[in-house]
Amino acid sequence: MERIEPRTLKGFRDFLPEDALKRKNAVAAIAAVYESFGFSPLETPALEYADVLTGKYGDEGDKLMYRFKDQGERDVAMRYDLTVPLARVVAQYDNELPKPFKRYQVASVWRAENTQKGRYREFTQCDLDIVGSSSMLADAEVALAGAAALRALKTPAFEIRLNNRKLLNGLLEATKIPDKLFVPVVRLLDKWQKIGDDALQEQLGALVGDEKMETLFDLLPSDDEGEDFTKWVERVQKPLAKTDDGKAGLDELLELINLLDEAKEDVFRVDVTLARGLDYYTGTIMEAVLVDQPEFGSVFGGGRYDKLIGMFSGRDIPAVGASAGLDRLLAAMEEGKEEVEDAEPVRASTADVLITYMDEKFVPEMLAIARDLRAKGINVEQWYEPARLEKQFKYADAQGIPLAILLGSNEKKKGVVAVKDLRTKKQELFARGTLAKEILELLGR
Amino acid sequence: MERIEPRTLKGFRDFLPEDALKRKNAVAAIAAVYESFGFSPLETPALEYADVLTGKYGDEGDKLMYRFKDQGERDVAMRYDLTVPLARVVAQYDNELPKPFKRYQVASVWRAENTQKGRYREFTQCDLDIVGSSSMLADAEVALAGAAALRALKTPAFEIRLNNRKLLNGLLEATKIPDKLFVPVVRLLDKWQKIGDDALQEQLGALVGDEKMETLFDLLPSDDEGEDFTKWVERVQKPLAKTDDGKAGLDELLELINLLDEAKEDVFRVDVTLARGLDYYTGTIMEAVLVDQPEFGSVFGGGRYDKLIGMFSGRDIPAVGASAGLDRLLAAMEEGKEEVEDAEPVRASTADVLITYMDEKFVPEMLAIARDLRAKGINVEQWYEPARLEKQFKYADAQGIPLAILLGSNEKKKGVVAVKDLRTKKQELFARGTLAKEILELLGR
Repeated sequence: MERIEPRTLKGFRDFLPEDALKRKNAVAAIAAVYESFGFSPLETPALEYADVLTGKYGDEGDKLMYRFKDQGERDVAMRYDLTVPLARVVAQYDNELPKPFKRYQVASVWRAENTQKGRYREFTQCDLDIVGSSSMLADAEVALAGAAALRALKTPAFEIRLNNRKLLNGLLEATKIPDKLFVPVVRLLDKWQKIGDDALQEQLGALVGDEKMETLFDLLPSDDEGEDFTKWVERVQKPLAKTDDGKAGLDELLELINLLDEAKEDVFRVDVTLARGLDYYTGTIMEAVLVDQPEFGSVFGGGRYDKLIGMFSGRDIPAVGASAGLDRLLAAMEEGKEEVEDAEPVRASTADVLITYMDEKFVPEMLAIARDLRAKGINVEQWYEPARLEKQFKYADAQGIPLAILLGSNEKKKGVVAVKDLRTKKQELFARGTLAKEILELLGR
Repeated sequence: MERIEPRTLKGFRDFLPEDALKRKNAVAAIAAVYESFGFSPLETPALEYADVLTGKYGDEGDKLMYRFKDQGERDVAMRYDLTVPLARVVAQYDNELPKPFKRYQVASVWRAENTQKGRYREFTQCDLDIVGSSSMLADAEVALAGAAALRALKTPAFEIRLNNRKLLNGLLEATKIPDKLFVPVVRLLDKWQKIGDDALQEQLGALVGDEKMETLFDLLPSDDEGEDFTKWVERVQKPLAKTDDGKAGLDELLELINLLDEAKEDVFRVDVTLARGLDYYTGTIMEAVLVDQPEFGSVFGGGRYDKLIGMFSGRDIPAVGASAGLDRLLAAMEEGKEEVEDAEPVRASTADVLITYMDEKFVPEMLAIARDLRAKGINVEQWYEPARLEKQFKYADAQGIPLAILLGSNEKKKGVVAVKDLRTKKQELFARGTLAKEILELLGR
């Protein structure tokens, strides 16, 4: 038989135990924070009818979607984010779900993107959403829960930028940019940081004309003159008042900032140029970036989408939510660590004890000890076959297993068990009856 | 815009919070048991190169695989089980991984099967495997960890059936069934329970001839005469000794039973007709069924596969593992419950407290209380907008949130907070400074 080359697809990754343990702990930490804000878990399928997903993310989204015909010739697609499936769920189970419906979901999503630093084709999103409330308190809570989750992960210095799509639209309207160009202009603004000032000016000028571009820039806060937000608000209030909902957007943003101030959080910053790429936002938008590692892009982002659920339910239901990007967060922390030099021991296993294999005749005793220790909440691994003790210790060391149990003829005769602490190399004898207690003590529990 | 019908694909399911919470708890319980046996987590991608997956599960498996061309015209397929990806991982990172390599993985797999009771197209497998050891102690530990996991889930009465593929092959060889019919005969035996005695005899007769069928049945333990396993072993030892590895299979099975006896587990039972459908098993096979709900089929199963990794690495590496079927286990437990009538309260939320919304002017105080309580490990949800208190209480009740905080003008004036226990309807006033302590007490923590 021909050998099959063992390999993974570009943009797809295996997580070996050391990394998988880190991911598991990070997900548990995020879920605990989300639950502390009253969000409950939801699970949706990896595959959906394609029409459920398409037409919500913009043309690029549709192009990057993994889409195919299944065995029953159905047009299906793999989950592209967790927000659209949530909108589908809300419409599908409308009467069963409480309002507000507060859910979180931690799951993989798939996008056939060009891979680059911290960007993969399969990655994990950690979403939290509040459905059924238009209150800015809901927007505030999404932002606060996001900040708390990033902090729980010990994320390096970050800030969460805030804006409002209505305000952004108002600024475009005040600039007399035609409605039909709002979406392309917003998408362009979203790329500002990535493409730089010159490219933005060039592309924006090509899109709306140089004159309107200049008018728009004049309406934005002036960095050069160090114009602060309050002054800017005074300046734009009048032109915004003449637009459809620019004033409403500004009021929402001011209310949100006010609530976040009251919550005594200091990681928030208004950025009226913040755009967010997705089409479905209608109000608040937010995005967290790492202050010292901006190259990782958005590590948490979201906003209000009051029209998305209506695409499924036929009537609008207000909703606000956001998503933390587990992969980028972990990648950024990994990179940050190289400088920090906090030498936490590598753990590729959660085992507390390795029961070494010294002689076949002690196998029944090994099994009995393993059973007893596990019943006391100790994670026990046992070696399976004859091997030099040195080899068994080396294995335990490499896995980060702190203790080894030795059971030889001498010990057996005396009715004791030897425990070697692989961290200190110290070996002690314990009576079989007090073994679990002594091990828990050695483990500091 | 046209409304999109909100719907899920056949065989795919949403899990609303109440069920998602149950699943989350079940997964955590299984993972804790697997870790207590020294297994570490591993994650592999949902999508693989198709040739990595095909040709390992038999023709039916290949047909049921979700397979398509990606944007780069690569032939890709969705994960069909967790064992083949593990085999790929072991070959791909051979030098990086310790031996034995003990990993567990809890993840979705996808099979375009006909849906039926407890059988879905997307379902969750909870796998544990030991790579790099031929010792029967490894097989025993997989079986013991499986039994412990089922017990941790409070699975209703179950038994784990054991057999050995070498022994099975030996019996077929002793019957003079040609080698090339081994695989179809084993697949047929695997369906015995499902299709019944008559259909089996008919199909087996058609496959190997009536005479060989009779010879094979004569070699199997006789239920009618109540032949016990020890007697049967005596009877078949001689014919098996003349086969290629029938004797080795019998010895392995005897050693495994002996180890499991020493581990004082009483859920194991030898069944020399147990076959398991998958092609890749080479030794021990095991399968758990629910004693009172056999219609759910196998809820945990696996075996030894010493040749699978070689398909990727070019050299054989011994391995043994098994998989618990989360969906069937939960479905069976759900069904079993109807009879038990243990009225555990429904919990669709993990929130401990709902801070009610009584007046906009108390919003800063609400935010401050929420922050303080969360810092003490209390899960806090807050209402977002003006609404009758009754409505807010009803929401909390429906979610299973036990406590509600009321903050009105009177309370504010006195510097106290009212806490209503929604379980007892009792309301008490607490000083702001002792609120967290009192709430923890009400929660029984």
